[in-house]
Amino acid sequence: MPNRSRRSPTSPLEAALSAGIGTPLSRSAADALTSVDLVALTPGTPAFVAAVEQVLTSFFATRREIVEPLGPVFLDAVEALGQFVVRGGKRTRPGFAWTGWLGAGGDPAGPDAAAVLTACSALELVQACALVHDDIIDSSRTRRGFPTVHIDFEDRHTAAGWPGDGAAYGSAVAILIGDLALAWADDLVHEAGLSPRALARFAPVWARMRTEVLGGQLLDINGEAGGDESVEAALRINRYKTAAYTIERPLHLGAALAGADEALVAALRIYGTDVGIAFQLRDDLLGVFGDPVVTGKPSGDDLREGKRTVLIAEALRRADPAAAALIRTGLGTDLDDAAVDRLRTVLTDLGAVDEVERRITELTDTGLAAIATSSATPQAKQLLHAMALAATRRAA
Amino acid sequence: MPNRSRRSPTSPLEAALSAGIGTPLSRSAADALTSVDLVALTPGTPAFVAAVEQVLTSFFATRREIVEPLGPVFLDAVEALGQFVVRGGKRTRPGFAWTGWLGAGGDPAGPDAAAVLTACSALELVQACALVHDDIIDSSRTRRGFPTVHIDFEDRHTAAGWPGDGAAYGSAVAILIGDLALAWADDLVHEAGLSPRALARFAPVWARMRTEVLGGQLLDINGEAGGDESVEAALRINRYKTAAYTIERPLHLGAALAGADEALVAALRIYGTDVGIAFQLRDDLLGVFGDPVVTGKPSGDDLREGKRTVLIAEALRRADPAAAALIRTGLGTDLDDAAVDRLRTVLTDLGAVDEVERRITELTDTGLAAIATSSATPQAKQLLHAMALAATRRAA
Repeated sequence: MPNRSRRSPTSPLEAALSAGIGTPLSRSAADALTSVDLVALTPGTPAFVAAVEQVLTSFFATRREIVEPLGPVFLDAVEALGQFVVRGGKRTRPGFAWTGWLGAGGDPAGPDAAAVLTACSALELVQACALVHDDIIDSSRTRRGFPTVHIDFEDRHTAAGWPGDGAAYGSAVAILIGDLALAWADDLVHEAGLSPRALARFAPVWARMRTEVLGGQLLDINGEAGGDESVEAALRINRYKTAAYTIERPLHLGAALAGADEALVAALRIYGTDVGIAFQLRDDLLGVFGDPVVTGKPSGDDLREGKRTVLIAEALRRADPAAAALIRTGLGTDLDDAAVDRLRTVLTDLGAVDEVERRITELTDTGLAAIATSSATPQAKQLLHAMALAATRRAA
Repeated sequence: MPNRSRRSPTSPLEAALSAGIGTPLSRSAADALTSVDLVALTPGTPAFVAAVEQVLTSFFATRREIVEPLGPVFLDAVEALGQFVVRGGKRTRPGFAWTGWLGAGGDPAGPDAAAVLTACSALELVQACALVHDDIIDSSRTRRGFPTVHIDFEDRHTAAGWPGDGAAYGSAVAILIGDLALAWADDLVHEAGLSPRALARFAPVWARMRTEVLGGQLLDINGEAGGDESVEAALRINRYKTAAYTIERPLHLGAALAGADEALVAALRIYGTDVGIAFQLRDDLLGVFGDPVVTGKPSGDDLREGKRTVLIAEALRRADPAAAALIRTGLGTDLDDAAVDRLRTVLTDLGAVDEVERRITELTDTGLAAIATSSATPQAKQLLHAMALAATRRAA
């Protein structure tokens, strides 16, 4: 592992970790939010993203007391996790959780607001585990323009000139860093400052969410290895790996914190499931037909990667043996542009694209209808409406 | 993944999962203990092991409601985890946690006892994560006479005749199964039925324990890859990977549940740290000098595996360049019996063995002294005395 002096002394996480020396664990990460105007906070805005990052940075500072006695090697790994977490994107899951809480009548000017946003931010640590472990599983080399965690530590192994298998070392470190993120997600929930009653409402939903996303990932791996290639199997993966984890359970978590009644929880869960699946179906279409200038990914990349999407399952369901063979032999190979075009034409001609578009429209409609007739606050209805359209009508 | 009909219909976990259909999550795993005589329960006895297993089996039954909608592929993975957990050994960590609770005045006839034993049992799910992920990291093929989880799923990939990399598939599934165990450890704590105040005392110790063991594993991997080979580094790994995780924090967790005062917690932590390190030092000696008939492992196996123990670090510290070179070139290679004997003689002649024996005696003495002068109950003092001698004077 490289010498600690290699790191920039201006790293914000380094500063946070140093600032945290001696901080008692009883100090809550929610304290970071005392100067944030929670009433004005809207998911998806830079202010929301900044507030979540303040919680996460403050939480990392509180870990210093536990991490520091283990020495610089562990501090290096923790800093790598911290940088990964702080580089995170739009904070979609905390955004939906916050929206669920607002929609169920949570008061952003009230005394619980900081604790609620802190607990919502813990979703980003679950996500860090999911991404770090997924990158090992998918052998991904980069994420958000940086080396993935396992590649980062493989590179450190190489730079140190150590004997032995650098790739195995990188994966081993990344497995442990992902585990740490998962454990810390819980710690952040415990230390958010929620009341015992709020924590007791939060915990069973939190349990379901984590089990569902791990199950969804397992089904996905199984499907790619050679399991069930039906439309139903692909939809089930979308439901648990994407919809439940990204929208349904975050909304549910927020609503549970606000003490929402069963009818509202049911409406939010229908919205989350339907819009979440529609979001993934849009993603599938963009992965095959998206404009590389807009998506930032090579055209048809999902075909080269061999992703087993609802689009592909729908096409296979409709295909005659010749068309099915064309799809199966092409998927997951290094297709040139002409071959990508041929496969696109097959998918379109089979009616699979229209069918997926039809599902997106239908799911978006049912999701929005559930919210429209619910008891959610007008502000939350408006937000959820905008979020649904952004998720399902996007071009990138 | 194999067809579900392949599994024995009499699998206890299968039965537990089936029995759990529709069980509300609000039913606590602690309910499994209603027919157990908690007053008579002594850590290390078959009755204690059975009680912990009842908690774990009952907890798996409560997961059915979440797992079942995801379908048979996920159920298969969950059953693999359940079998792994139920095959677990002596339940050492729940045993120390229970002892810490008793020692701090916890009443096994009182109303909290079942919730406490349930929370203590959650340590076995953290341990399942640690072992499943460690087996990937160490490329271990068997554990407790069964294929490791990643090898099990590699074998299922092969049996299914799927194309692609079966080893990568096995590792991917095992990463997710380990994650599930870690998430479920928390869920079991949340659902144990602890009072909010007890949970609030438990959570910060639980946080430290998980961070420390992950940090300890990271230091261990780093040390084996080529990092710091000093005695201090090896002792630090022993402290966090073994002592804190196996004895110190479990005792601390139990004591925290009983509301122990700071002086008793300090005494238990000194005992846990010192006896825990002494236990590991004994393990290191047995790994090199142990009788294969008694240990069940080939003689000198730790030398062939190249483990960087305090024994090796102590020998290197004392060695002249020629002896150091002999140790470094031999370690981690396929040594024959004569070469193992030569290395043993070198370690002994350098005084490293005597020094490690001296440390074991000293640490056992300081650990026992801390307990002897503490306010722990006489029953707990007696138990901890016996456990310390069993851990540090054993031959296997």
